[in-house]
Parts: sequence; C-alpha cells; structure tokens
Amino acid sequence: MGDSVPNELYFEDLHPGMSFPSLSNYKVTAEEIKEFAERYDPQPFHLDEAAGESSFFKGLAASGWLTAAIVMRLRVQSIRIAGGMIGAGVEEMRWLQPVRPGDTLRTEAEILNVRHSQSKPQYGVVRSRTVVFNQRNEVVMRSIVNFLAPLRKVAK
Amino acid sequence: MGDSVPNELYFEDLHPGMSFPSLSNYKVTAEEIKEFAERYDPQPFHLDEAAGESSFFKGLAASGWLTAAIVMRLRVQSIRIAGGMIGAGVEEMRWLQPVRPGDTLRTEAEILNVRHSQSKPQYGVVRSRTVVFNQRNEVVMRSIVNFLAPLRKVAK
Repeated sequence: MGDSVPNELYFEDLHPGMSFPSLSNYKVTAEEIKEFAERYDPQPFHLDEAAGESSFFKGLAASGWLTAAIVMRLRVQSIRIAGGMIGAGVEEMRWLQPVRPGDTLRTEAEILNVRHSQSKPQYGVVRSRTVVFNQRNEVVMRSIVNFLAPLRKVAK
Repeated sequence: MGDSVPNELYFEDLHPGMSFPSLSNYKVTAEEIKEFAERYDPQPFHLDEAAGESSFFKGLAASGWLTAAIVMRLRVQSIRIAGGMIGAGVEEMRWLQPVRPGDTLRTEAEILNVRHSQSKPQYGVVRSRTVVFNQRNEVVMRSIVNFLAPLRKVAK
C-alpha cells in the first residue's frame, strides 16, 4: 500500500486488508466514566467505585457504550473519509474486558470488504473490523462496522 | 405475563416474547448532538447546522453512537435486571433515519431468546431486539443486543 495515505479517502481508495491504526491513545478517566454513566447508562458499577467492587465487574468499569463512543473518535481520526464517515450499521460488537479508570485505549481497524451500494449509487459500502486494545495490549472490544464512502467517479 | 412486572428481574423471569416499552421519551437537543460530537464523533454534519445542510444528512444529525447511548438509557430504565444490565455483545445495529434536534425518542424492547451461560454458570444470556421510534413513529434505529441476567437459583 505504501506509506502515504491520502488525506481524504474515497471508495476507490479502500481495499480489503488495508489497516488503520489509531493516531493517538485515549486515556479514560474515572470522571468521564461516571459522567457518561449519569447521562446514558446509570448503573451502580459505572457510577461508583464501591458499588463497582461488589458487582460483576469487581470495580468501577466504563459503560460499553462509552467505549464504543471513544472508538468512534479514534476511528474518525484515523480513517479520513471524504465528506465524513457515515455509519451504515454494526454487524457485531463484543466487550471482552472491562475498561477501567486510567486505561489507555488504541484501535486497529482493517478493511474487510468493499462493495457498491445498491440503493445509493454514489456511495460504496465498506466493512471494517476494529480491535480495541488497552495499555496491556489486552483486547477490550472488537467490532465489525459498515460505513459509506463516496465514489470519486460516479458512473453515468 | 400479567400487568405487574417485578422491580428486579432475574433470568428466570425473562421469556421470549416479553416486551418492555421505554418508560419515558427522550428529547434530543441540538446542544446535546453537538456536545457529544465534539467529544466522540467530531464530523461536520454532527457539529454544525450549515455543514449538515450540505452533507449526506441534509441537516444537523445526531451521531449514531449518541442515539445508541440514549437507547441504553431508555433500556436501563425499562428493563430492571437484578444487579444491573451487563452487556454481552451487539449482534446487529442499524441506523435507519437521521435523528434531528427536537426529535423525541422512545424504545420498544422484546426478549427474543434466553439460554444459560456456558462460561458463567450463575448467569443467563438474554437476546433482545430494540426498535427505536421518533415522534412520528418512524423507526430511527434497530438493534439486537445480548445481555447477562443473574440466576435467582444457582444450581449446585
């Protein structure tokens, strides 16, 4: 593939096997875990250390939906689709390890498959797998997500 | 099933076909759309009305991950699992219509399947489908999510 990836990617630029590591790591804090939980996932093990200790998670743990949101941030930075990355659906998402305060997350995304869109002829559908690692290189989340990428040359 | 749902549900209480409408509606504001986007999905069509107008979405639209987070909130309120709802994975998620400022979301969740967990004998795995409607009863999102529910009686 070479080292230089164009800044704005079109459908024609994306091929199975291309990989996109996150450009930065994301440090998760107890404050962000609790703040997100208060708004979107108000459960004891996401809100409070002591409640976390006596739960399934044996400690404060991030909502899986916070992890998914952080992953979107890392993906948007590392896969620069022309006009933006438009989600076309999640095929699979698995949370494999709790995300804890102080954890530092990074992602590795890979293109699995590309095809033209039937319903939107000016777009292609790109299937990508993302693996999310913490600072110990443990996989904390894995997902397969489809997104749209615009065609550079629209067929007449 | 009767009208009265126990406050704290165990695995034994959950059966295919049971449904759980959200207890409230969730009003999405432009502020929340932009605030979430700044942190987790910083793309023009989630950040700015004018940029949204000239995009795929033809207007400001919520990040699909904000919609997913709001859906978690509505689900946690309406399906009260003893000890909390622990996500075991997403089987499928589809965003079918953009979520706009001022939209009011509600969910209908249905239990599809229940089984004992192989790896965690004190839990069962519950598969649920959630359909997310806006104020015009358009389906904006659909998902199939697995979660854990604790067994009331743990086999010796």
